Formats: sequence, structure tokens, C-alpha cells
Amino acid sequence: MAETTTRTPREPADPARTPDAPAAADVRPDVLGWTCPAPLRDQPRVVMGHGGGGAMSAELVEHVFAPAFGGPALDRIGDSAAVELGGARLAFSTDSFVVRPLFFPGGSIGDLAVNGTVNDLAMRGARAAYLSCGFILEEGVEMEVLGRVAGAMGAAARAAGVEVATGDTKVVEAGHGDGVYINTSAVGLIPAGVDLRPQRVRPGDAVLVSGAVGAHGIAILSVREGMEFGVGVESDCAPLGGLVDAMLAVTPDLHVLRDPTRGGLAASLNEIAAASGTGVVIEERAVPVPEPVAAACAFLGLDPLLVANEGKLVAFVPREHADAVLDAMRAHPLGREAAVIGEAVEDHPGMVVARTGLGGTRVVDMPLGEQLPRIC
Amino acid sequence: MAETTTRTPREPADPARTPDAPAAADVRPDVLGWTCPAPLRDQPRVVMGHGGGGAMSAELVEHVFAPAFGGPALDRIGDSAAVELGGARLAFSTDSFVVRPLFFPGGSIGDLAVNGTVNDLAMRGARAAYLSCGFILEEGVEMEVLGRVAGAMGAAARAAGVEVATGDTKVVEAGHGDGVYINTSAVGLIPAGVDLRPQRVRPGDAVLVSGAVGAHGIAILSVREGMEFGVGVESDCAPLGGLVDAMLAVTPDLHVLRDPTRGGLAASLNEIAAASGTGVVIEERAVPVPEPVAAACAFLGLDPLLVANEGKLVAFVPREHADAVLDAMRAHPLGREAAVIGEAVEDHPGMVVARTGLGGTRVVDMPLGEQLPRIC
Repeated sequence: MAETTTRTPREPADPARTPDAPAAADVRPDVLGWTCPAPLRDQPRVVMGHGGGGAMSAELVEHVFAPAFGGPALDRIGDSAAVELGGARLAFSTDSFVVRPLFFPGGSIGDLAVNGTVNDLAMRGARAAYLSCGFILEEGVEMEVLGRVAGAMGAAARAAGVEVATGDTKVVEAGHGDGVYINTSAVGLIPAGVDLRPQRVRPGDAVLVSGAVGAHGIAILSVREGMEFGVGVESDCAPLGGLVDAMLAVTPDLHVLRDPTRGGLAASLNEIAAASGTGVVIEERAVPVPEPVAAACAFLGLDPLLVANEGKLVAFVPREHADAVLDAMRAHPLGREAAVIGEAVEDHPGMVVARTGLGGTRVVDMPLGEQLPRIC
Repeated sequence: MAETTTRTPREPADPARTPDAPAAADVRPDVLGWTCPAPLRDQPRVVMGHGGGGAMSAELVEHVFAPAFGGPALDRIGDSAAVELGGARLAFSTDSFVVRPLFFPGGSIGDLAVNGTVNDLAMRGARAAYLSCGFILEEGVEMEVLGRVAGAMGAAARAAGVEVATGDTKVVEAGHGDGVYINTSAVGLIPAGVDLRPQRVRPGDAVLVSGAVGAHGIAILSVREGMEFGVGVESDCAPLGGLVDAMLAVTPDLHVLRDPTRGGLAASLNEIAAASGTGVVIEERAVPVPEPVAAACAFLGLDPLLVANEGKLVAFVPREHADAVLDAMRAHPLGREAAVIGEAVEDHPGMVVARTGLGGTRVVDMPLGEQLPRIC
């Protein structure tokens, strides 16, 4: 692991501030003057961190969208929803893609737009059957670029076995977009007996990851900032439906699956811990990290647990099924490097803790935003 | 009607150019130098007209998206798809909304984002059950503005009886967006016995509109350009599910429904004529146009048939049911001004013709783009 320092739970910005000393707030640092990507809470305006998939995104949902939308589906607002329609249980999900640049090592916005949404459904145990695509194009984008993006989408859809069923295109003036933005939504059937959600996690569950983490974020960073980290790093962008099917063939009784995209493994584990009310302990050294990703993270001061992935999943599995599920994952091309990285525990409910390589422990916080904006 | 002049079918740009005289192309006007919103074909780059919902949008689907996506759903790529899942027939649709300004007389981008997609499903005869919303926010947009947009979405969703089930938020840097862009997708059940598609249109079908056309486009234009046209014009933005239910209660055997949004009534009628292979004749004077809309169109040289609507529908109905369907529409609050405006005919298959107020006829062309960009 690139990072083995020990961190403590986040401290208040000013420990001197107590209910008896509110005036101390006057001497706190002017955090509003800090620039993104350091995300800021309690902003009167949207900042980059609100799109990072971390605590600020969650606050936006909690304080802006949830009160406005209301309704019984509220607690399901997340990566995907499980809904009932015509007697069938469907998974339904949406994602917008604003990744920059449009093409990067290992993929493109077109691959991401298909796999990202297909994977959101896979995390419900569903194979995406039908996909919608909505384009917001910036005036002036080359037809040839749009054609390559569409070609990548078509190839990714065929690889994932999903049919592009409906679409929409809008064009905005130059200076009001960034070439190509894509939204995709998908619907698919949730198999009988499958019920994947964090509330089903129990202490003792094994925590598995399907492979090495951090490649997508570092691949984007390398091409965007013109950095190279020895060996090239390619995005891990891939459709996870087949891997999930292989896992569910072992037992439909998996508890929860997440694909650790924005905010990385840290965000996924924290979301599960918070929603399940259990604690999570991981062994840092058990988390597979590709050598060039670890090197890049060490060089840049990034935490691999926070770096985005686009073709990995984390699973909470009843202890008695963990070995068989791990074997099934390793037998699948997208799970060859699968590993058990930790477990759910009764201690510190809602909190994620990592045992570090130096023998200490650290709290793995929910990231506020994303270390690298516009990663997907 | 504001426009009663007679037009002929579009002429080639240079009638002198024949296969024997290709060099004549050299002296054609430099159309590439023309500016939007005059839309241009055969562009190497995307122009505003490609998002207008007219012939240029159709070309983008035909030449870029269809070859890339392939598959059996291809001929269904349009406002919504009818798909089969778990034994149920579902309508599935997506739309992105980039309207400028975000708030306009009679509504907001939030109202549009719900009603636009709900109405796409209604045109399949389906009530939208679940809605997704994907936000692309521009860094710096005020939380208060976002809150008002979300509030409008929530209210519109409750009015339409659709549940916001899943969502996503991305943020892009200032200068790469325009405050708030929204994508919504929805799924809903298509009732048994209902099969709404242009291929079912037959000569003799009556053509009905549910009310006066042109209000949405003129409302946007008035506030965007600071124009006022005597009496204020408000957008007609509304959810059409209830009106469609009332029509289907008369007979499930309606042939096709369309909501004439971008490209107006002209685009909807041309799409139906082209896909059905029948001709369409309308009586211009039978098309209800609000007085201030007619005045604004006359002043600006716009054709009300081309102006966008967000709460109207056009229906092709078997002649024997036309009177009863018209009565049912007029009994509904959103159909009080419903009217029979024409019929499907065997003559001029694929072409829409209007009988003008002066007793002549004119071809109602498919618009190339949209007269007013970013109307929805």
C-alpha cells in the first residue's frame, strides 16, 4: 500500500469552539477562500466536490433533492433503485458522464457511459436489458469524434448484452458544454431470491474485492495532466454483469454489492457501513493495488482507497459462502485477482477502519468530494 | 393563422447543378459561413440544428447513432421505446433538458424535465411509474436556484403521479455548462390492447390536436429576448397522462399519439407521415393558435406549426371513433380546445400538406432544426 500513515477521525475545524465560545468562529480560517478540488461544506453555491460521489454529494441529496422529491423511494435514491412494475422486480438506474478527456488509456466516455450504468444494475443482481442514451453536445464538436464515441458505446453495449432502446440529443452553444456529455439509464430484471442492499449486512460478513483498485482514476490523471508513471496504467472499465452472475450462481444470498467508482473503495465501504449500521475492518495490505497505481499514489500523495474504479466490485458475503464465492470470482476473467480484504464487525458501527501495514489502525473516512473531478 | 403564404417543396440549393455539371458546385454560396440557428446539412461539426428535433436530428440518428448501436431496437429509437421485460410491456424513454432560461412564464426546467419524459411515455399509452433524474450542474450555480428547480421537479412529479426513484449528480467547471442541465428517464406499463405507433395509421384517420399550439416556444422567446407581445404568453407545460387515459377509455384502438415539442406540429406530422407511408392534409384555419402567439409569429415571421409545445398532443384516430374521442378530450381540463385539424390520405404518401386560409395549399416541410435553440 502506498499510504501507511495513521489518521484519526476528522476533528472539528476549531477545537476551541464550544457552545460557550461561539465567538471563536470569527478566528477560524477562511475556508471559503480555498479552491477546489478541496471541497467545502455549507456553500451557497455548487462546487466541484458536490459531484464527487462523497459526503458532499450525499449532503446535496439529503438537503436539496430528498426534501423536494419525497415519496417512498427516497431511501433508495442512490446508484440504482429496485422497483416493482407489472409484477416484476426491476432495477432502474441513471448516470451522467462528463469525463475529461473523452478518450483515455483503456477506454472512452462511450465505454464508461454503457458500463457505468450496466454496473449499477449488476450491483442489484440485475442484467441490464435496455439502455437509454441522452447526449448533450457542444456546438462545434467534430462529427468524427461523436462517431467514435457512439461506436465505443455500441461495442460496449454489445459486449454487455444490453440493447440501446431509446435516445435523445440536445445541442448547446460553444462555451456551455465540453464536447460530449452522455446520460444513460437502464432497466433490467432482478432475479428471484436476490436482494442486495446494505441493510442485509451482518457482523461476520466477509468483504471481497474483485481485483486491484485505482487503475481508472490514475489512467485519467495520467493522460489529463500529462504525467506518466513508469509502466502505463489503463482504465479497468468493464461490464460486471457476468461476474455477478457467476457469484450469484454460488448463492443468491450475497448481502450487498457496490462498484467503487467516484470516491473509490473508501466511499463504497463507508456508504455500506453507514446504511447497515455495522462496522467494517479491512486489512490495507490485503487490498490489491497495481504497482504503477501504488507508485503514482505515493508520488502524488493520493490514497488508493479513494481512487475511482470502473470495472471492480466490493461484496459483503456471509462468512460460510465466502470461500466458494471467492473461487467463483477467481474463475471469471474479471475476478482473477479477487481477494478477501476484511469483514463486517459489531464494533464501531457505521465506521470503516483499516489495519495498516505498520500494525496500526486508521479510520477510513468518507471522502468529502473526489480527489480528481470529472473522472466519469 | 399568422402564415398563409404558399410555399413549394424545398428546391436544391443550386438548380443548375446536375450530374453533368459538377463544377457548378464551386460557385454555390458558402453555406458554411452562415450562422446558426440556420441549420446546415453535411457539416463536419455539430451545429445547433442537430439538437432541434427536425431533419438534422434525424440525420444524426440515421448516420451516426443507428450504425453504431445497431440491434433490433433501432427502428424504435425515438421519443420512447416499447420493450418487453419480465412478461410485461414497458414504455421506456429519456430526454435531456437544456432550456434557457431556467425559469420562464408558466414553468421551469424542473417542470419540463418531469413533464417532457412523462409525456413521451403517455404517447405510448403508458403512465410513467418511476422517474430517474441526472443533473449536470455548473460549478457556481446557486444552491437556492438548484433548490427551486428540484422543488419544481418534485411538485411536477407528484402532479403526474410518478415517483422519483433514482438519481445522479455531476458537476462541471464554470464555463462548461449553463447552470443546470437535467436528464430524466422513465418506465411505465403499456396497457393491454394499446399499440400506438405511426405504422398503424390508415387513410381516413382523423387528425386531432388537444388544444392551441405554440405557447411554449413563444413564452421562452418572450423572456429570453425581452420581447412582449401584448398579452403575456405562458408555457403550456403539463403532464398528458390523464388526458391520454381519457382518450383510451373511449377506445384502446387509437393509432398514434405524438407530443409536438421541438419542431412543433410540423415535425410530428412529418414524422408520422414518413413512418406510416400515408399523406396528411390539415386545414390551417382549424389549428387552434392563441391570439398572442399568432401575433408574435406574424411579427417575427415564425410559423406557428413549427413552434414548440410542452402540453399538447396530436392523435391519429380511426374515423369512426373520432367524435367520441374528441368529446372525451374536450371533457378533460387539458383538452378543452381540442379540435379535428385534418386527416390521413392516400395521396402524396409521406408528405404533409396544409390547406391555407386563402384557399391554396402548401407543403408543410419537416423543419431542418428548431427555430429557437434550447427550447427544452
